[in-house]
Amino acid sequence: MAVKAATTMDRRTGVALWRQIADRIRQGIAAGEFGEGGRLPPETALAERFGVNRHTVRGAIAALVQEGVLRAEQGRGTFVERRKRLSYPIARRTRFSEGLRDQAQDRRGHLLGETREDADTRVAEALGLQPGAPVLRVETMSEADGRPVSCATSWFDAARFAGMGEAIAETGSVTLAYRRHGVEDYFRQSTTVSARHADVGDLAALKLAPGAIVLVALAVNVDVEGRPIQFSETRFAADRVELAVAE
Amino acid sequence: MAVKAATTMDRRTGVALWRQIADRIRQGIAAGEFGEGGRLPPETALAERFGVNRHTVRGAIAALVQEGVLRAEQGRGTFVERRKRLSYPIARRTRFSEGLRDQAQDRRGHLLGETREDADTRVAEALGLQPGAPVLRVETMSEADGRPVSCATSWFDAARFAGMGEAIAETGSVTLAYRRHGVEDYFRQSTTVSARHADVGDLAALKLAPGAIVLVALAVNVDVEGRPIQFSETRFAADRVELAVAE
Repeated sequence: MAVKAATTMDRRTGVALWRQIADRIRQGIAAGEFGEGGRLPPETALAERFGVNRHTVRGAIAALVQEGVLRAEQGRGTFVERRKRLSYPIARRTRFSEGLRDQAQDRRGHLLGETREDADTRVAEALGLQPGAPVLRVETMSEADGRPVSCATSWFDAARFAGMGEAIAETGSVTLAYRRHGVEDYFRQSTTVSARHADVGDLAALKLAPGAIVLVALAVNVDVEGRPIQFSETRFAADRVELAVAE
Repeated sequence: MAVKAATTMDRRTGVALWRQIADRIRQGIAAGEFGEGGRLPPETALAERFGVNRHTVRGAIAALVQEGVLRAEQGRGTFVERRKRLSYPIARRTRFSEGLRDQAQDRRGHLLGETREDADTRVAEALGLQPGAPVLRVETMSEADGRPVSCATSWFDAARFAGMGEAIAETGSVTLAYRRHGVEDYFRQSTTVSARHADVGDLAALKLAPGAIVLVALAVNVDVEGRPIQFSETRFAADRVELAVAE
């Protein structure tokens, strides 16, 4: 019975009922409706409020516990995790480590992999290269206080940035890796934000519960002379991060 | 059999297989992988590529047709709709109508409703009012070339902007409605972007297929003296809009 209820879904939506309820609980928490004093109302109260059975509520709570939104305490109840969404600034001077300085003590980047490839039309255009020019494709992941925040695919001109992946791995910072390649300062030229469901790669890199949403930022960085030095697609866990546009 | 396949889902994800495949087809189209010459590969080819059966592919295509991403032509096949995602600028001078000028011929706003309420803590803080101060809550919807782009909930100081809803209804424009209240110019002070699944209200206002994602922009507008005049939460259909951050 519990299993059946937990997988009930609205056929028209393609999204399971427990996931819809999880979304609504998360929104309620964000709006300050739930979790007064940090404690979530009992399952029965939530079931009544949402017009679903207790098993569905249990499935929703289990997913939110896995995502780190809630914390179950044996015999005491379910509590809202104090961690707020990180507010990640998008600005002319966007740097991962600096942007989260006030919000997380420990901020670091990890290299997941580097491959050499030929620039496709999109990458070539963004970097001001000819299509087919050799580029480095670098996969990274960033975390704040041990929590995955974003994963990114970045492309660099292979001629100018040979060994960029290694430099990121050694320094844990794109900014420091740039310095090794003679780039002392850089700016964000453009950022475009969209959203989609996390794919398999995002789920693994960000340790997300399947069905989660990612914010996707396409960005171009330029050096002080205005030459493009990096094109990147960064996926942020939408449950953990919001993007603050600085004017 | 068809029905069974179309509702098969990965229990761990809470997202039906057909919706996951719809997401991947949509991403493929955006990346230029599918729809060469405008035509989608046959169902059998897509089924093989994604490792699912044809019925699942059919469910995914049906959803994308409903969302306006694909167009089925009797006896000819399935075609990618030419309409690209609109690129909505987020900048100090953000105005709906101007922002989409080059991308849509007909841009208009609709009033969905206006109610008077007491400002909660969040609204009061954003507008620089005391909690409990009377505010107007205005629900609007914006469309471009007949296609819903966003729906928004905006709060205005009721003392300064009495009749704002009516003014928006009559002029079809927040900018023109401001003028009637003596605000000749205004600026975007701050914007925060997040993402979530569309709720029931978003689905109706934006004519979305259930399970769709919305980008949520929280914004404060200020007048030329820097006084907050509007706090708004705008939901953009993530399949139709991306947000372009101007630096």
